[in-house]
Amino acid sequence: MGLLGEGINEVIATTSGNAAPIGIICRDAVPRMVLFRGSHTAENVLRDGWIVANFVYDPVVWVRTAFEDLPAEAFRTEAVDGTSVQRLVDAEAWIAFAAEVERSTQEAHVVRLTLLREAVEDLRLHPVNRGFASIIDATVHATRYVRTGDPHLRRLIDHHASLVRKCGGRREWEALDLLQGYIAKQAPE
Amino acid sequence: MGLLGEGINEVIATTSGNAAPIGIICRDAVPRMVLFRGSHTAENVLRDGWIVANFVYDPVVWVRTAFEDLPAEAFRTEAVDGTSVQRLVDAEAWIAFAAEVERSTQEAHVVRLTLLREAVEDLRLHPVNRGFASIIDATVHATRYVRTGDPHLRRLIDHHASLVRKCGGRREWEALDLLQGYIAKQAPE
Repeated sequence: MGLLGEGINEVIATTSGNAAPIGIICRDAVPRMVLFRGSHTAENVLRDGWIVANFVYDPVVWVRTAFEDLPAEAFRTEAVDGTSVQRLVDAEAWIAFAAEVERSTQEAHVVRLTLLREAVEDLRLHPVNRGFASIIDATVHATRYVRTGDPHLRRLIDHHASLVRKCGGRREWEALDLLQGYIAKQAPE
Repeated sequence: MGLLGEGINEVIATTSGNAAPIGIICRDAVPRMVLFRGSHTAENVLRDGWIVANFVYDPVVWVRTAFEDLPAEAFRTEAVDGTSVQRLVDAEAWIAFAAEVERSTQEAHVVRLTLLREAVEDLRLHPVNRGFASIIDATVHATRYVRTGDPHLRRLIDHHASLVRKCGGRREWEALDLLQGYIAKQAPE
């Protein structure tokens, strides 16, 4: 499995000019992801047949890519097996995959990933921080909350927001401000 | 701040023959920790004046050290500035601190930490995994739950247990089984 761990690896997936948080599921030797129909990531993967998993530990990038695009200068083009792929400049490590739809439902595609190349650029120690972890959880809940307005999700977001304030550093606080801005703008009444 | 990050760094603290999860608070240039009176960690720190922060990413070690002791072979002695300190053999990195009580209340001591030495032994990439993060959160809640039986903590533990099952790998599942065993043995009626 190379750099991937067992279970669901949360990464920032890049496709052509696009970045979004996504989970890579490793339950046996084959990594897979579930792409919802209509997302930019799904459109790009179906057209181009590749995706890059970026390992990123900056909480602001997690929140930003969940809700909007990154500027062009955030991406770097890499030639992998004769194909140009794009990864994040600031990724500490990345894996380029060939992506093939294994099966599809009305809502989503299950995509099978085949490793093309993996690279470690800038490995750093990340002490366990419950504030960072809470940014990841709050972001997952917030992307659903802005579509549904589900009050249970709102309570989970508030729980994680208080952990971010208690345990996070300035970068987590900045990410939380950004997240709360997106929620205020996009949440249904 | 060296290897430490801003906010609360969750580490496994080792003192003489003892290991327990603890938070190191970095809100300005001075790292601090809060030690509850009566804990082995507090007794050892007050007697010996040192503590080692171990950076560990094995979920089983987090759960085990929260509830019981590790065997002697889990520790390695290091000579730091003429003092023998103990760190975990399997730590990916560690920091030895001189520890000095800054102020005390009836319940706890606030301890000021001064870096003696830090070392990176075996730096590895840890993909973000919500199952791993949920083991950390569930463990924090469980150590309180076994003392109080607070139903709100029980709901948080159950929430994180379901995330561990969904997102974790086998090592997180093993840690969850262990955690649920401790809760079943120790929780008040």
